[in-house]
Amino acid sequence: MKIEQDQISTINKTSWQQHNEAFDHLASTIKHIDVEDIISTLAEFQIAIPSWALGAGGTRFGRFRFGGEPATLAQKLNDIGVLHSLTGSAGAVSLHIPWDIPEDYKAIKEIASSHNIEFDAVNSNTFQDQPDAQHSYKFGSLSHIHRDIRNQAIAHNKEVIDIGTKLGSKSLTIWLADGSSFPGQHNFQKAFSHTRESIVDIYNYMPEDWKLFIEYKPYEPNFYSTVIQDWGTSLLLANACGERAFTLVDLGHHLPNTNIEQIVATLMLHGKLGGFHFNDSKYGDDDLTVGAIKPYALFLIFNELVYGMKHNTNNPTPSWMIDASHNIKDPLEDLLQSLDAAMIAYAKAMLIDQKKLSEAQQSNDVSRCQEILKDAYLTDVRPIVQQARLNVSAALHPLEAYRSLNVRKQLIKERGLKTAATGL
Amino acid sequence: MKIEQDQISTINKTSWQQHNEAFDHLASTIKHIDVEDIISTLAEFQIAIPSWALGAGGTRFGRFRFGGEPATLAQKLNDIGVLHSLTGSAGAVSLHIPWDIPEDYKAIKEIASSHNIEFDAVNSNTFQDQPDAQHSYKFGSLSHIHRDIRNQAIAHNKEVIDIGTKLGSKSLTIWLADGSSFPGQHNFQKAFSHTRESIVDIYNYMPEDWKLFIEYKPYEPNFYSTVIQDWGTSLLLANACGERAFTLVDLGHHLPNTNIEQIVATLMLHGKLGGFHFNDSKYGDDDLTVGAIKPYALFLIFNELVYGMKHNTNNPTPSWMIDASHNIKDPLEDLLQSLDAAMIAYAKAMLIDQKKLSEAQQSNDVSRCQEILKDAYLTDVRPIVQQARLNVSAALHPLEAYRSLNVRKQLIKERGLKTAATGL
Amino acid sequence: MKIEQDQISTINKTSWQQHNEAFDHLASTIKHIDVEDIISTLAEFQIAIPSWALGAGGTRFGRFRFGGEPATLAQKLNDIGVLHSLTGSAGAVSLHIPWDIPEDYKAIKEIASSHNIEFDAVNSNTFQDQPDAQHSYKFGSLSHIHRDIRNQAIAHNKEVIDIGTKLGSKSLTIWLADGSSFPGQHNFQKAFSHTRESIVDIYNYMPEDWKLFIEYKPYEPNFYSTVIQDWGTSLLLANACGERAFTLVDLGHHLPNTNIEQIVATLMLHGKLGGFHFNDSKYGDDDLTVGAIKPYALFLIFNELVYGMKHNTNNPTPSWMIDASHNIKDPLEDLLQSLDAAMIAYAKAMLIDQKKLSEAQQSNDVSRCQEILKDAYLTDVRPIVQQARLNVSAALHPLEAYRSLNVRKQLIKERGLKTAATGL
Amino acid sequence: MKIEQDQISTINKTSWQQHNEAFDHLASTIKHIDVEDIISTLAEFQIAIPSWALGAGGTRFGRFRFGGEPATLAQKLNDIGVLHSLTGSAGAVSLHIPWDIPEDYKAIKEIASSHNIEFDAVNSNTFQDQPDAQHSYKFGSLSHIHRDIRNQAIAHNKEVIDIGTKLGSKSLTIWLADGSSFPGQHNFQKAFSHTRESIVDIYNYMPEDWKLFIEYKPYEPNFYSTVIQDWGTSLLLANACGERAFTLVDLGHHLPNTNIEQIVATLMLHGKLGGFHFNDSKYGDDDLTVGAIKPYALFLIFNELVYGMKHNTNNPTPSWMIDASHNIKDPLEDLLQSLDAAMIAYAKAMLIDQKKLSEAQQSNDVSRCQEILKDAYLTDVRPIVQQARLNVSAALHPLEAYRSLNVRKQLIKERGLKTAATGL
Repeated sequence: MKIEQDQISTINKTSWQQHNEAFDHLASTIKHIDVEDIISTLAEFQIAIPSWALGAGGTRFGRFRFGGEPATLAQKLNDIGVLHSLTGSAGAVSLHIPWDIPEDYKAIKEIASSHNIEFDAVNSNTFQDQPDAQHSYKFGSLSHIHRDIRNQAIAHNKEVIDIGTKLGSKSLTIWLADGSSFPGQHNFQKAFSHTRESIVDIYNYMPEDWKLFIEYKPYEPNFYSTVIQDWGTSLLLANACGERAFTLVDLGHHLPNTNIEQIVATLMLHGKLGGFHFNDSKYGDDDLTVGAIKPYALFLIFNELVYGMKHNTNNPTPSWMIDASHNIKDPLEDLLQSLDAAMIAYAKAMLIDQKKLSEAQQSNDVSRCQEILKDAYLTDVRPIVQQARLNVSAALHPLEAYRSLNVRKQLIKERGLKTAATGL
Repeated sequence: MKIEQDQISTINKTSWQQHNEAFDHLASTIKHIDVEDIISTLAEFQIAIPSWALGAGGTRFGRFRFGGEPATLAQKLNDIGVLHSLTGSAGAVSLHIPWDIPEDYKAIKEIASSHNIEFDAVNSNTFQDQPDAQHSYKFGSLSHIHRDIRNQAIAHNKEVIDIGTKLGSKSLTIWLADGSSFPGQHNFQKAFSHTRESIVDIYNYMPEDWKLFIEYKPYEPNFYSTVIQDWGTSLLLANACGERAFTLVDLGHHLPNTNIEQIVATLMLHGKLGGFHFNDSKYGDDDLTVGAIKPYALFLIFNELVYGMKHNTNNPTPSWMIDASHNIKDPLEDLLQSLDAAMIAYAKAMLIDQKKLSEAQQSNDVSRCQEILKDAYLTDVRPIVQQARLNVSAALHPLEAYRSLNVRKQLIKERGLKTAATGL
Repeated sequence: MKIEQDQISTINKTSWQQHNEAFDHLASTIKHIDVEDIISTLAEFQIAIPSWALGAGGTRFGRFRFGGEPATLAQKLNDIGVLHSLTGSAGAVSLHIPWDIPEDYKAIKEIASSHNIEFDAVNSNTFQDQPDAQHSYKFGSLSHIHRDIRNQAIAHNKEVIDIGTKLGSKSLTIWLADGSSFPGQHNFQKAFSHTRESIVDIYNYMPEDWKLFIEYKPYEPNFYSTVIQDWGTSLLLANACGERAFTLVDLGHHLPNTNIEQIVATLMLHGKLGGFHFNDSKYGDDDLTVGAIKPYALFLIFNELVYGMKHNTNNPTPSWMIDASHNIKDPLEDLLQSLDAAMIAYAKAMLIDQKKLSEAQQSNDVSRCQEILKDAYLTDVRPIVQQARLNVSAALHPLEAYRSLNVRKQLIKERGLKTAATGL
Repeated sequence: MKIEQDQISTINKTSWQQHNEAFDHLASTIKHIDVEDIISTLAEFQIAIPSWALGAGGTRFGRFRFGGEPATLAQKLNDIGVLHSLTGSAGAVSLHIPWDIPEDYKAIKEIASSHNIEFDAVNSNTFQDQPDAQHSYKFGSLSHIHRDIRNQAIAHNKEVIDIGTKLGSKSLTIWLADGSSFPGQHNFQKAFSHTRESIVDIYNYMPEDWKLFIEYKPYEPNFYSTVIQDWGTSLLLANACGERAFTLVDLGHHLPNTNIEQIVATLMLHGKLGGFHFNDSKYGDDDLTVGAIKPYALFLIFNELVYGMKHNTNNPTPSWMIDASHNIKDPLEDLLQSLDAAMIAYAKAMLIDQKKLSEAQQSNDVSRCQEILKDAYLTDVRPIVQQARLNVSAALHPLEAYRSLNVRKQLIKERGLKTAATGL
């Protein structure tokens, strides 16, 4: 299914006047910054949707299926097309290989193009065994103690690069699940050295205009150690590769109470924040909807991103992606909520009066610093976000539009109740 | 110093028009609930200020002094008077004995009365040794292995009740710091049994119209175990006492990632939430300004409080108090920010459309449940909070008023730069 | 396959002399306690093996299969028979319904009996949907907002009791995975009340000689709230049921840094510790081998268990079970290691000089308290544990015996490489 | 007071025979490694005692004084002399400036020399204000927004280097408490850049044979952010300085559940582990006795240290120090327990059969890897540690000797009950 432009404008009309009033009121109260700048920045902000986020996720205890899940790459692109039509901010896809190997590249590119969807970073998978694999990754892949298995994992990553190149991707994301579940299982130094060697090999294979994003995570699926356990380890590996290798921050991949915004600032200062995965969590890598648990922390993180994108010219614009798992919600609804939450946090962060903040910091006026942030955070920026969507012909209220258009019902009709997204 | 009514109204005039416009716009958008009800509830909401929060706090590594700190109980009441004049919501004090034993009860009551300040729960202190104490609390107080030391601590608590009775307090809060720092130091069962016996003794001494609040905390100042480590332990002790004994929740007294709002709901369902201490934290019992780190969690907690105050008629209205430590801010500014943050969270929680939420829960419409909470949370309720203050002749913008009135400067002039609040 | 008595004694002979020397030396150094008492207590100590622990576990990211996994209940009992022959301490099984519904009760009981295996607590499953289920548990079971679904879950638990009764079980364990993943999804008070009502119904259905064990867990598979989030909640439910309802402690079901040993002591003091699940973890509910990460904490927990079993006559002997997940080890090897680690911790805890400890506590001699625990903990008690096994004709070194008998190889030969234990 | 050689040998005689038997038995069971090598390594292992650890510590809630605390630097050295006589492993002191500025360098050096105590790393203090300071460190020191204050802090560090040079120290440890307690207070990038500039300045001032150790810590005394929050940040700073700058690991300075041993391995692989602070903790930076809470984690960390000291020739031997706070124990007893625990963990780590471990890792035999570590860990190595002490004429049982010599009683007699160690 595809949502047509006029369907959205028809729906928008019903709340247009209300929006205009709210927007005008809000705009009239903002003096220190040009609201139009915020709106145009928001309109250009595009977050990649990973192909695996379009179906129901699960836990190790089970999975509750959702109807109308996409079974093919083409269907996944169509789903993202729905999201992009409604929000104007989902104009990219992040593929996962081997789940998403196109059979017909030309056809796939045409479908993507018809939805204005670009191919963002491609993701390799060495945390599962494929049916036809010669070696198992049970005890690791790029870090494995045996060269044969490392080589298989390296070859897989190179294949992913080849596929990405054909589609127009310009970056590879490596999330390395390798680690150990028991003390003694790993020789930490060897595991690191092997990983470094493997990743450098992959890096050197990349086309010259590609970037490499190295993800980190403290635990899960291994429960004693993970080879790339934190941003420091990721950065050592990126530095071992070269200028086009970067650290990737996933919001859920941190120990309890980590100050993530400071990590973001440190990486951007050093020009090494390459990718960014949005989600939210209360306990671990819970992969919940963006902004669902700690929206203020998300705002603080965006504050650093905004600052870094302005001041750290050595740092590329990060590659944005949503990385959530949709166990009990309609995946598309969840993604619409995630996209909205990211936009809201971004808008609020741009509202911060940086000049006043800098002055307050200069005089160590701590209460004032807090008030300045709070002033931006407490502002109801939804009219600004809506205006940004309106400007690109997207829906004022994407979730409501999704429901009134009966998208899920149609997808179930088209695809059936018992399809399953490939992958996990 | 005392802030006069006309000083506040003069200041309010400068932002009156702006406030009215904002309020009218906001009020016009709220249909599902009577805004006036929210305003009058907010106007009645009073949070006790603990006497120790008026001076600079510190850490084990040191303390940076602040000028103009109150040195006497009378001065502390005057400081709270300043807060209450500005906010209309600080109409109570929570005393700490032995730091705040009045010399002249009549005079102290008159000062409090002149500020419209009531005497909320009184707090005992058995976590420090007093200069003239016969026994040391180094190894515990109400839980101590030796009866003599338990008796001294029990007698102290009874004295605190006597002092509170003379002032008009109606409740005692016990925060028991007792615990152990090394495995083996405590026999857990004996420590619990001794504590139970001690607390029941204190409970039975209370006048019949008094309530007992039993605080819990997982660690600090002991670093292996705390006798009352969690709400379950507190509830066992409260049940051992009787109907007028309750659990007290302090937001900072939980292990990482605890779902506090669920604890609040469970306690209120059982009629056992007696007291509530506001603050915020990122790592442990950081005692930061309310709402400074996790404002959404605060909103979710208020959602449970609002629900419980409406539905759990067996639960008394909790006794509210701010329990923060002001290491690097002007303590009065910090308290103004805390009071404001609590009001904002309360207002947002009251805005939740409970009818729609209940319907969405009934149909397991998870996305919708989230949207309903988010809709209330994202609303900029500051005009409502300001209106509530306006209705009781307090300041529209308390912190700005505090600054424009040069309160701190005057306090330093009156009291000097090097005074120190008694206590820690 | 079945291990014969003489196979074990043949293997034991090879290290008999070495064991005797080690044991004699150790026994000669222990003066304050009768070593034979420890040995006989250890020999009687039986830990149930859950039927689901005999196959390879997995994570939400995938599962690496292990060869020779048991495919039927009979095969599972045979595997436990192997463990029990080798260790003498695995004389019970904990079944999981519906994974383990016997087709022929008599035959199953005969197999169990032939291995000297008793039927411990039976476990219900309402965290997954069964193929033929009328209602889905996607949004809860015993706590569900709808009575129909609660009733289905209650009926399932009653059926589990019926099955257990036929087999000779005397207790039901309820691990309730119900909870919510997003704020607003649950009305906490209703979820608790529904759960209480459901569990009381199940409790009342139990035969009079049965016990009910109520497990708690802070998170996973739900990532915002769990209905029975902590021991306090479990205890409220147990108290609502009656005298034969108890709390069950699973070592992995706690927030970071929880003092579990104190929870054990508190529950036993109140006669409410009914069940105990062994495993170990570094980050969350990692379900690692017992003692693999925090063996000292395990020792401290056993110290409380030993103390409680001696002093709390109102508390029944807890029902012991291993609850681990074997993702990268041979499950039987993992269980042998777990059984050994539990025995070692138990032996060390029994070695504590309780008389001296009590004296040191009485005089607040903190260093001495620590030394007394340390003295027991640092003792190499393996010869005592081995002697306990020897006394019941089990293997001195179970893991080595398991390997030298090529058990896994034989199981693969019998059952094939690609079988899978039923269940997860 | 000073403990004489013959006092110790007299006491040793009472348990000599028992020790010999235990040692001989143990030695006879160890085949895979030369026990004498372990003993001589242990005998050479020296851990610096920080001058502030000799008095009672405290928490922000208060401090319970201990009798006989050293009031002068000379007395502190004498206390360390007691520890070194008893253990043979406390042959170094780590001074804290300005608490320990010598009045008479020659005299102080002679006292140290008389106890065979060397001057290890010197520590600067910019987390407190000194009475005569021109600028306050309330809002930071080396990271401060204002150059004047940074310069004062830099000058202080240079003075510390000068003092250390006169005493024979060869390294400076910087623990930078700078950070922020509220979002917005700090511009993270500026705070980092200022810190980098300041530390490079200090580094360049150091004599050519000096090393710089940069400590990290996630929180406390600041409760939102710390400028050097983790090892990654420390390493960036060390790299900015040069070859003689290193990261310092303090065991208590990590977020919950951190895999510290992996950090140690990573730093040593890169030649950047310079200093190491021992202590233990359950919740945060609890500063408890070494090995008191997580002895197995300590063993695993020592495993990495042993491995790194053997294989990472680019990494200097780390500078060892105990960094604990003695709130409720006799500080000297606490230090004796800490020294013993470190020795025991070191001995166990050296017992690991590295050859077999490497083989097991090579074949991904996870159970075996775990067994090999466990085999070393479960061994009662106390006779080996005692033998190492015996070889350097120290006490077989230092804590018992300390008590039987009535050291504390004598110190109280000499110094009085109410002295206080300078500093915190």
